Amino acid sequence: MDTRFSSAIHTLILISEAETPMTSEEIAISVGTNASYIRKLTGMLKRQDIIDSRQGAKGFRLKVAPQKLSLYRIYQAVSDAEQVHIFDLHQNPNDSCIVGRHIRPVLSEIFFGLEKEIEEELGAQTLADCIDRMRKEIPFGYGK
Amino acid sequence: MDTRFSSAIHTLILISEAETPMTSEEIAISVGTNASYIRKLTGMLKRQDIIDSRQGAKGFRLKVAPQKLSLYRIYQAVSDAEQVHIFDLHQNPNDSCIVGRHIRPVLSEIFFGLEKEIEEELGAQTLADCIDRMRKEIPFGYGK
Repeated sequence: MDTRFSSAIHTLILISEAETPMTSEEIAISVGTNASYIRKLTGMLKRQDIIDSRQGAKGFRLKVAPQKLSLYRIYQAVSDAEQVHIFDLHQNPNDSCIVGRHIRPVLSEIFFGLEKEIEEELGAQTLADCIDRMRKEIPFGYGK
Repeated sequence: MDTRFSSAIHTLILISEAETPMTSEEIAISVGTNASYIRKLTGMLKRQDIIDSRQGAKGFRLKVAPQKLSLYRIYQAVSDAEQVHIFDLHQNPNDSCIVGRHIRPVLSEIFFGLEKEIEEELGAQTLADCIDRMRKEIPFGYGK
C-alpha cells in the first residue's frame, strides 16, 4: 500500500499551517510514521521546488502558495510514476488470436482516458482546498 | 498487479464475438494465462449472472446484451472490492495533533469523490463500446 501521496498532503498541511515550523521528527509524529520516511518525502518535495528548508532555522517552508499548489503536482512529486495509474493490463495476450492482438490498444485507450480524468481533477484541486476542508472539519478552528 | 478486470473484458469479448464458443482452455490461450485462472474469472462472471455455460455444449454465452453490460458491472464482478480504489490513506495519523485528527475525513472525501467519478465513467461504458473500438482497430474486420 503506497500512502506517500496522502502522507505528503498531510506533511504539506503541517508545513503550511503549523504555528511554529516543524522538523521531520515532529511531522513524523503527526503523520504516524518515522522521521526517515518524512525525510524521504520532504526530499522529493524539495526537488520539485514545492518546499525548502529554512536557512539557519528548523523546519520547512512552502515555496508555492497553497492556492497554487495542485494535488496533481504533489502527486507527481512523490510518485514513482508520472501518470496516475488505476487499472493494470494483462501482459501476455496472444498475438495469434485477433482479439488477443488488438485488446491492449483498446483497453489502454479506455484506461488512459479514465486516468487522464483523475489527473485533471487532481490538477483542479489545491492544497488550499484541503486546508479549507480541514477548517470545516474542526468545530472551532485550528488550535482549539 | 491485478489484471483480472482487463482479463475479464478480454474473456467477455471472446465469449460475445467468437464464431464458435470457446472453452476455458481456448480463452486462456488468447488471454495469455492458464485455464484455471480463466475458470476462476468465468466462475465470478457466472455468479453475477453475466455469463452461463451452454447446456450440453462447450463454452459460455453472455446472459446480458453487450450494449447493457457496463464496464463497472464487469469490474465489480471480478474485483475483491465493491468500490474502485485509487489512492491509499496513511493508516496511523496521530489523534493528538489537530491535523492528524482531521486528515482522514478530509482526504477520504477527496479520494472518494475521484473514485466515484471513475465508477460513473465505467458505468457509462459498455462491453459493446469495447467491441466497437476493437472493430476500429482491426483494418478489415474480424477474421481477416
